[in-house]
Amino acid sequence: MFWTPTTRTPPVADNFADQLLAAIRKKGTPTCVGIDPVYSKLPAEIAEHRELNDENDSEASLDAVLEFCRRVIHIVAPLVPAVKINTAFFERYYWEGIEGYFDLVQEANDAGLVVIGDCKRGDIGSTAELYAQAQLSDPDFGDLDSLVGPDAVTVNPYFGLDGVSPFMKVCREEGKGIFVLVRTTNESAAEIQGARLESGLTVAEHVAQLVAGWARDEGLIGSSGYSAVGAVVSAKDRDSTVRLRGMLPNSIFLVPGYGAQGTTAADIAPCFKSDGTGALITASRSVIYAFEDMKYLERFTSEWDKCVEQACKDFVAEVNSVVQVK
Amino acid sequence: MFWTPTTRTPPVADNFADQLLAAIRKKGTPTCVGIDPVYSKLPAEIAEHRELNDENDSEASLDAVLEFCRRVIHIVAPLVPAVKINTAFFERYYWEGIEGYFDLVQEANDAGLVVIGDCKRGDIGSTAELYAQAQLSDPDFGDLDSLVGPDAVTVNPYFGLDGVSPFMKVCREEGKGIFVLVRTTNESAAEIQGARLESGLTVAEHVAQLVAGWARDEGLIGSSGYSAVGAVVSAKDRDSTVRLRGMLPNSIFLVPGYGAQGTTAADIAPCFKSDGTGALITASRSVIYAFEDMKYLERFTSEWDKCVEQACKDFVAEVNSVVQVK
Repeated sequence: MFWTPTTRTPPVADNFADQLLAAIRKKGTPTCVGIDPVYSKLPAEIAEHRELNDENDSEASLDAVLEFCRRVIHIVAPLVPAVKINTAFFERYYWEGIEGYFDLVQEANDAGLVVIGDCKRGDIGSTAELYAQAQLSDPDFGDLDSLVGPDAVTVNPYFGLDGVSPFMKVCREEGKGIFVLVRTTNESAAEIQGARLESGLTVAEHVAQLVAGWARDEGLIGSSGYSAVGAVVSAKDRDSTVRLRGMLPNSIFLVPGYGAQGTTAADIAPCFKSDGTGALITASRSVIYAFEDMKYLERFTSEWDKCVEQACKDFVAEVNSVVQVK
Repeated sequence: MFWTPTTRTPPVADNFADQLLAAIRKKGTPTCVGIDPVYSKLPAEIAEHRELNDENDSEASLDAVLEFCRRVIHIVAPLVPAVKINTAFFERYYWEGIEGYFDLVQEANDAGLVVIGDCKRGDIGSTAELYAQAQLSDPDFGDLDSLVGPDAVTVNPYFGLDGVSPFMKVCREEGKGIFVLVRTTNESAAEIQGARLESGLTVAEHVAQLVAGWARDEGLIGSSGYSAVGAVVSAKDRDSTVRLRGMLPNSIFLVPGYGAQGTTAADIAPCFKSDGTGALITASRSVIYAFEDMKYLERFTSEWDKCVEQACKDFVAEVNSVVQVK
């Protein structure tokens, strides 16, 4: 027998939306834990650790913060498909913090989680290219060969398409994803996002229309029908959520603020399509600081990790009571 | 004689707008050089340096980039009052890049320049606090005592007031400043910023109205009448610039994109009030890459630093031909 050469096409990275939906199906829940660590809220066991006890010392406090994050990642990894890590909490520790952030991205990736870097970057096109490389792409430097970027990042839409397209390029080429800010959870979000246009749409809805177009751009829609271009959508206002869901047929919603920021199980229902797909619900403080909550504290006393685990299970159960993952 | 105790009030930091206007007056020009370094555009003298010659190696290319930036800072320091350093170009080199960014902030500060960190950050209130500490504040950690933050940063308005107010707090407490993105220079900026509201205003004008209110907030207006809260305003469209100048009486405009991004001397005139105050004009690529421009290359051949110096002088002369600093 002769060896027959085969024509190989270069491996095409799986579409991000397909990867995320597969992870959701595998874990049986469309949930995500947000990693927003603040030194002053760390469990005593970690903050009082001998070597990690000085909040005026950036290295010592960063070490404590990272230790906490690693523990949280391993607690939630068997329970949820994804984590969202917010860069602000690591930039606060300057360059050492950024190194720690990338360590955590790697750690969460190794733990089988889909990792969303919540960096909310945005700039004019030529500069957005640099952010897309820095924040989303896997490094192309020989000496950083083993470093991985997150699977997806959040992006600010204020610059319009040319601020977003460099991120879309990385999505296409590396099987990564983005979630474009459409409507945020904070109190003053409506000042701009809620302003009403001549067309009758709010600014958030106008942004949603643009995002819907970007999501359909060549090479971004996976076999699931969803695009690597998703949207950050606060679920606080039901009517508006219903409208946004209709306007963004190809985008997965990253829904922040479950729990501590006031979003409830009832609010999130309209983020999903009738087949139970279309959203990833994120809880941050209500899970990672569950040891401050009397409900868990009374049950587990000083075992902070059990509080976090139980709060994560409760969060998953609440979300799954509203939506059935098939 | 007895020693008489005096009641000391804590030193109140000078208002940022007052500091910036004093620097403009001292140098006699309302100009700023943007530091946007890309390895592939570095002068041969630097990129071909023995130890700095591998663009696939992040450390070697970052070293070259930083060497270039240091040289540019010292070339322009006698000529202009301010530099704007864009964080994206340093994030591209991960944590080492961020350390390099802070080294340059220090270097520019030591050279007597007002330093604007062009980071365009934005997030919900509690997270924006972290960004305000990380990007604007002087570090409060004992082990980073000698580190300084930039004098001002750029901020994205999409979250409304609660995303901006943590930065305003640092402005008040540390004499720092912010420039809120109102209208950007990129081609697709109008997709969102140019959308027309029911009120008749564009989204950019609506943002300008909000910024005008934030600028008047307690403790932010200096003795000059200008606020520590400024605005990023592209000067490409004259009529719109005139309207924005009228809507933002207390805000200094940071006007990006002079030269390479297509903004001309005629465009910038309406950014200033009739007394010649009110704007800081930024040129980036047209100055720092002047050695790619035949006009300078023919005159100075391989002396890239002389090209940069002359381009900076020409930029200052062009701006000063339109506005007289008193």
